[in-house]
Amino acid sequence: MTVDNAFMARALELARKGLYSTHPNPRVGCVIVQDGRIVGEGWHARSGEPHAEVHALRQAGARAKGATAYVTLEPCSHHGRTPPCADALIDAGVARVVAAMQDPNPQVSGSGLLRLMQAGIAVQSGVLEAQARELNAGFIKRMEQGLPFVRVKLAMSLDGRTAMASGESQWITGPAARSAVQRLRARSSVVLSGADTVLADDARLTVRNEELGLNAELSALADARPPLRVLIDGRLRVPLDAAFFQAGAAMVATCAAATARDRYLSEGHELLAVPGSNGHVDLRKLLVELAARGSNEILVEAGPRLAGAFARQGLVDEYQIFVAAKFLGSSARPLLDLPLGRMAEAPQLKITDIRAVGDDWRIIAVPLVVAAEAVVPH
Amino acid sequence: MTVDNAFMARALELARKGLYSTHPNPRVGCVIVQDGRIVGEGWHARSGEPHAEVHALRQAGARAKGATAYVTLEPCSHHGRTPPCADALIDAGVARVVAAMQDPNPQVSGSGLLRLMQAGIAVQSGVLEAQARELNAGFIKRMEQGLPFVRVKLAMSLDGRTAMASGESQWITGPAARSAVQRLRARSSVVLSGADTVLADDARLTVRNEELGLNAELSALADARPPLRVLIDGRLRVPLDAAFFQAGAAMVATCAAATARDRYLSEGHELLAVPGSNGHVDLRKLLVELAARGSNEILVEAGPRLAGAFARQGLVDEYQIFVAAKFLGSSARPLLDLPLGRMAEAPQLKITDIRAVGDDWRIIAVPLVVAAEAVVPH
Repeated sequence: MTVDNAFMARALELARKGLYSTHPNPRVGCVIVQDGRIVGEGWHARSGEPHAEVHALRQAGARAKGATAYVTLEPCSHHGRTPPCADALIDAGVARVVAAMQDPNPQVSGSGLLRLMQAGIAVQSGVLEAQARELNAGFIKRMEQGLPFVRVKLAMSLDGRTAMASGESQWITGPAARSAVQRLRARSSVVLSGADTVLADDARLTVRNEELGLNAELSALADARPPLRVLIDGRLRVPLDAAFFQAGAAMVATCAAATARDRYLSEGHELLAVPGSNGHVDLRKLLVELAARGSNEILVEAGPRLAGAFARQGLVDEYQIFVAAKFLGSSARPLLDLPLGRMAEAPQLKITDIRAVGDDWRIIAVPLVVAAEAVVPH
Repeated sequence: MTVDNAFMARALELARKGLYSTHPNPRVGCVIVQDGRIVGEGWHARSGEPHAEVHALRQAGARAKGATAYVTLEPCSHHGRTPPCADALIDAGVARVVAAMQDPNPQVSGSGLLRLMQAGIAVQSGVLEAQARELNAGFIKRMEQGLPFVRVKLAMSLDGRTAMASGESQWITGPAARSAVQRLRARSSVVLSGADTVLADDARLTVRNEELGLNAELSALADARPPLRVLIDGRLRVPLDAAFFQAGAAMVATCAAATARDRYLSEGHELLAVPGSNGHVDLRKLLVELAARGSNEILVEAGPRLAGAFARQGLVDEYQIFVAAKFLGSSARPLLDLPLGRMAEAPQLKITDIRAVGDDWRIIAVPLVVAAEAVVPH
C-alpha cells in the first residue's frame, strides 16, 4: 500500500502540471511501473491532446507488458476526441491498474474499471483519493451537480476591510499575494466580476503571464488557455470602450439583453440574459449555464455587493482571503455586503489553511453549510 | 556556543514557570553546570521569595565550585528584599557566569556582571537574548520607558466583526480560545477594560483558575497572584453592585474622582483620577501610573471604542486577535472604532504568528509604527 501511495503521489504530481490548461477536462497524471521502477510517465496537457495514459504508455513502450499503471482518475472507456484509454491499457498488456478515484460522472463511473477487469486486468480504486478529488474539485462538482466550483477571492485588512470609504483601495496586499491571485485566475475556467469593480478599478481581469511565476512550459500552456472573463452587469453600465472589453472577448451576464446583443456581438463579446426575479442577474442560473459550457472552476473577484450575493445564496465553495497586516479602520468598506440580524444566521466556516504569502497572509475557508436556506438573512 | 545555547534554553524553560506569578519581578531561570552536567536548577516563583540563582546554588551545593552558571537575566548586585545574587555566585565559587541579557534598568545595567568580573569570574552576556527579552517584554519596557507592555486581546469573525449590531456577542470563539485568554489574563499584572464592556457583558474579568489548563503547581502560583482589574469609567457608570466589583478589589480610572473616592474605598476599591484634555481618561497617564506601581504587562479586553482609543494613541505593543471561522456580516460591530479617511493613515502591522486554537485561530500582530503621531486620524 505504501508503494502504491508513492507511485500515485508521483502521478498526482504529474497531473498538477495540467493545473492551468486542461479545462474543461480534468487534470490527470499516469505512471507505469515495471518491477518496482517507473518506465513511463504522462500527464494530460489540454483538451484535444492525448490523455495521460497515452503519454505514459508511449514512453513505456514494450515495458508496459505486465506492468502496473497508476492513474489519478479512472481511465475513460468511451470514444471522445481521443480513443478510450481503457483500450490502450488493455492493448499494451498491463497487468494491474490502480486508480485514485472513479469517474465522477455517475453515468459512466466504474465502466472504465469494469472494462479493464473484464479483460483480466487486476484493478483497484481509492488510492490517495482525497488528494485526487481536491485537484479536480471543479470538474467533479460539474459532473456530479451540474455546477462549477466557485472560489471567491477577497483581499482585506486585518480588521476585515477592503477599501477606504472614499473607494481608495488599490494594492492593499503586496506583490506575492498579487502573483498568487494571478495563478488563481489562470487555473480557473472563468474569472467573474461585477460592474462595480470593473468601473471603479477599470479592471481588465486578464491573466498577466509575467506575474504568474511559473516555468516556461506551464506559463506557455496557461497563456494558450486563458479563462473566460464574465462580467455581471444587470443594467449594462460598463461601456464597450472600457479596458475590460478592450482586453479581449468577454461574456456579459445581464437582465434584459435582446436589443443590445448585436452591439456586444459586433465587438466580439457575448451577451447572456439570465434575469432573476429580483431585478438582479440570477447567479445560480448563470452558474448552471457556465457549467453546461464546461466551466470547472470559477474565480469570483468582485466587490462586497456581488461577493456578498454569492455568499448569501450559498453558492460559494471556497473563500481565499488575502489579509494585509494593517488596520483600515471602522469607516472603511466591509468585506462582504451581508447584513445579518442575529448570531444564529452567521454563516459557519472552516479554516482549512493559513499561510504567509510575502508580507501578507492567505486564509482558505470553506462554508460548513452550503444550502442557500441556511444563510439567507432576515 | 551550542552548549551554552542548550543550557540557556533550559534556563529559559525554567524561567517560564514564573510566567503567572513573578510580577512585578521578571521571570528568571538559572542552571548550574559542572563538567558538562547540570548540578543545580532554579527559577524565581514570586516577589519576596529567593531568586533563581539562590535556588540553583542551593541544589548544586559544593558542586557549584568551579561551575558555570547560566542565568536568563544579569544577576542583581543590589540589596532588595533578598541579598544580591552576584554575591551569592561569588561566595559559591562559580568560575563562569553566562547571562542571556543585561539588566534592562539603564541605571544598574552591567553592574552585576561587573561585580562578578571584579571577583575574577569569567562573564558573558547575550546568549539567547531575543528569547529572554521576549519573556520579559513587560518588565523590560517598564524599566526602559516607564510604561507597561500593552497587549490588546480582540475576538472577531473572519470578516472582522465582534458582535451583532444588537450587541449580541457572547461566545463567538470556542473553549480553547477562551482558555488561552484566561492564560493571557493570568500572566498580566493588570487586566483593563471599559465601562461599555463591563456593563454590556456584566463582565468580571477575573481569572477562572479551572480554565487555565495549567498543572497544579503553576495553577496555585497563578491563583496566589491574580492580576489587578482596572476599569476605565470616565463618568462612573458602572454601579458598585455590578459583578465586576463584587468579584474583588479593583481600581477605577475616571475623570473626576474626589467626591466619589470614599464610596469606592469603603467597598475596597481604589478610584484614580486621570482626566485627559478631551473629557476622557488620559490613557497614557494611566499607563505611566500603573508602571510606577510595578505593572509589567497589561491586557486590554475592551470594546471597539476603548481598544480603538489605545490603537489611535499608539499605545499598543501587541494585538492578539482570536478569529472565529464565521461571517457576522456587514451590519455587525467593527473590530476597532478607528475612523480613518485615507489609506496613508492606515496603521501598518506585522503578523508574527498565526496558529489554530481549537476550532478558532489566533493572530499575533505588532504595530510597525508605535509613535502616536503616525496613527492619529483626520
